[in-house]
Amino acid sequence: MKVNGTPTRTIWVEEDGWTVRIIDQTRLPHDFVTVPLTTMDDAATAIRDMLVRGAPLIGATAAYGMCLAMRADPSDANLDAAYAALYATRPTAVNLRWALDDLRAILRNTRPDERAVSAYRRTADICDDDVAICSAIGDHGRAVIEEIWQEDKGSRGRVNVLTHCNAGWLATVDWGTAIAPIYKAHDAGIPVHVWVDETRPRNQGASLTAWELREHGVPHTVIVDNVGGHLMQHGEVDLCIVGTDRTTAGGDVCNKIGTYLKALAAHDNGVPFYVALPGPTIDWTITDGLKDVPIEQRDAGEVTRMTGRTDDGRIETVTLTPQGSPAANYAFDVTPARLVTGLITERGIAPASEGGLRGLYPEAP
Amino acid sequence: MKVNGTPTRTIWVEEDGWTVRIIDQTRLPHDFVTVPLTTMDDAATAIRDMLVRGAPLIGATAAYGMCLAMRADPSDANLDAAYAALYATRPTAVNLRWALDDLRAILRNTRPDERAVSAYRRTADICDDDVAICSAIGDHGRAVIEEIWQEDKGSRGRVNVLTHCNAGWLATVDWGTAIAPIYKAHDAGIPVHVWVDETRPRNQGASLTAWELREHGVPHTVIVDNVGGHLMQHGEVDLCIVGTDRTTAGGDVCNKIGTYLKALAAHDNGVPFYVALPGPTIDWTITDGLKDVPIEQRDAGEVTRMTGRTDDGRIETVTLTPQGSPAANYAFDVTPARLVTGLITERGIAPASEGGLRGLYPEAP
Repeated sequence: MKVNGTPTRTIWVEEDGWTVRIIDQTRLPHDFVTVPLTTMDDAATAIRDMLVRGAPLIGATAAYGMCLAMRADPSDANLDAAYAALYATRPTAVNLRWALDDLRAILRNTRPDERAVSAYRRTADICDDDVAICSAIGDHGRAVIEEIWQEDKGSRGRVNVLTHCNAGWLATVDWGTAIAPIYKAHDAGIPVHVWVDETRPRNQGASLTAWELREHGVPHTVIVDNVGGHLMQHGEVDLCIVGTDRTTAGGDVCNKIGTYLKALAAHDNGVPFYVALPGPTIDWTITDGLKDVPIEQRDAGEVTRMTGRTDDGRIETVTLTPQGSPAANYAFDVTPARLVTGLITERGIAPASEGGLRGLYPEAP
Repeated sequence: MKVNGTPTRTIWVEEDGWTVRIIDQTRLPHDFVTVPLTTMDDAATAIRDMLVRGAPLIGATAAYGMCLAMRADPSDANLDAAYAALYATRPTAVNLRWALDDLRAILRNTRPDERAVSAYRRTADICDDDVAICSAIGDHGRAVIEEIWQEDKGSRGRVNVLTHCNAGWLATVDWGTAIAPIYKAHDAGIPVHVWVDETRPRNQGASLTAWELREHGVPHTVIVDNVGGHLMQHGEVDLCIVGTDRTTAGGDVCNKIGTYLKALAAHDNGVPFYVALPGPTIDWTITDGLKDVPIEQRDAGEVTRMTGRTDDGRIETVTLTPQGSPAANYAFDVTPARLVTGLITERGIAPASEGGLRGLYPEAP
């Protein structure tokens, strides 16, 4: 999407044909800084230090790390070493593992002197595939926004969408998942306005979602996570769209902590609640999200401390809680399928149920 | 309640018999600082600059402001001037107005040379009455906690209470409203643990509620506002108790933004959801909270900026959002009576309905 007027992806190859460049997302929203990756170690560090985040973008960065490794030394030994080093950066990231497995399988069947070229070619395809999936999610979701606009434009003057966390282009190669329908609607001239949940404790909404919407020129307003229910009670939200880290075969949705509360409010007020997801994030091995999805607990310091920019431009971290008060940091929650209006995938919109999902993915195990 | 082991109120008269002392709540949770009020202007400034907050405490501070004014100059002219100056500090605060009206009526019928003594005596009664009301709320609420403990202790080992914002002793003269039952249960030896909602945007939970629970020695854990639903889904919350700024005759509850989302989650998971309130905060003139309670919007800077302590002890304010991203700051929401298990008042626990409330307050208009 656009940054300062220029169409931009989250990762790309420079004009020299091999240097990879990424946005340092740890500097957002206060500074837009891009950094070059010229070695496999650069790529591994970018993943480990979270300069890149979001499953698809992590996968793409790992794949480019493999490209850079093959350019430096295309031997079998280095292929295995690069695989191990990149895999170790985020061993639980599904897309990262998938991208590395895919590349290794191809490269093992490629002559060493052709491996670098082959790796770059395949990685470009991986990136383009991700863009195509997100774009398709955007098209299907845009239809929902368009329908609300057609039916309702007189009474509101804009379509109000509430979103939680960041499932925008910064988490993917381009377009994003939950935000893709919003970009598509905006680009098609539908007046859309986004309520951006701050998304404590890591503030991905207030920092990343707000930043990318502003750069692309989409009207939006940042709110604290407590506000969405009140807005829905007063007719100020036409629909919710959120992303997901993992969707069960039964349509239960694991997403950033707090998603469940917004789904409850949407249900209580008759507001449609959509979840946008690439088909590959469906976990066909589990059905009951509440029982079967373990919820990660992260460092309590993310709750008690917060980082931002002082008025004179310094980045500072401040503590909010009294010394000696413990905190707990649950990272995700599960929204039961009964609260989800529809799952927006690259193949269309499915009801949040096993039947609905299998209708779109008949090849699923 | 206790501060560093010493029983403390939020406002008191020093041993000299006339100097008033308060806790500077703007310095919490990082520093416990008390400040003397020796003039009416001191009291007005303390209210205006929010060194004191919470309706009952604001009322008590205004009343002591009147005492200090009478001590300096007990003339009719100064009585009227002090009333006007103190009223202007927070013209929408109901308790403040009530306390000033009460004192002015008494003082007008008192000889000037007896006004100071009379004002101090009446203000002490106002404070003691507030303590008695909060203590009674605590006793009635404690019975609910005790019942859960008796029924369920084997399976949990503690009673987990979730609360939102700060309705603790810092908002009153002592005990608080929503937290009073927790103090009573804790002091009675019931093992109670409190999930403290951070309560964005002003973080009254993470700062004030956490601070007062820690000082009194009540086990607690700070969580971001997004977490409560997840905890309730997993049986980690036995009951919720929150305060309220205004309750309608029909039992709808206006409280800090985000309360409605917690009430929805409690309802969805069969967790009892109680609201603690002094009878005088019931607004008998309105029934439908959603239609009739206007919701205050506050400065967006409370959303985009946050203040805390740096690791080297400085108090800093940092901005979280990108420059140019607007924010909106809704201060309260309304929880419909259908989601409220009971209203804990100084007279007992009422069902959240007009019939229930009028049963406890038959003298209501």
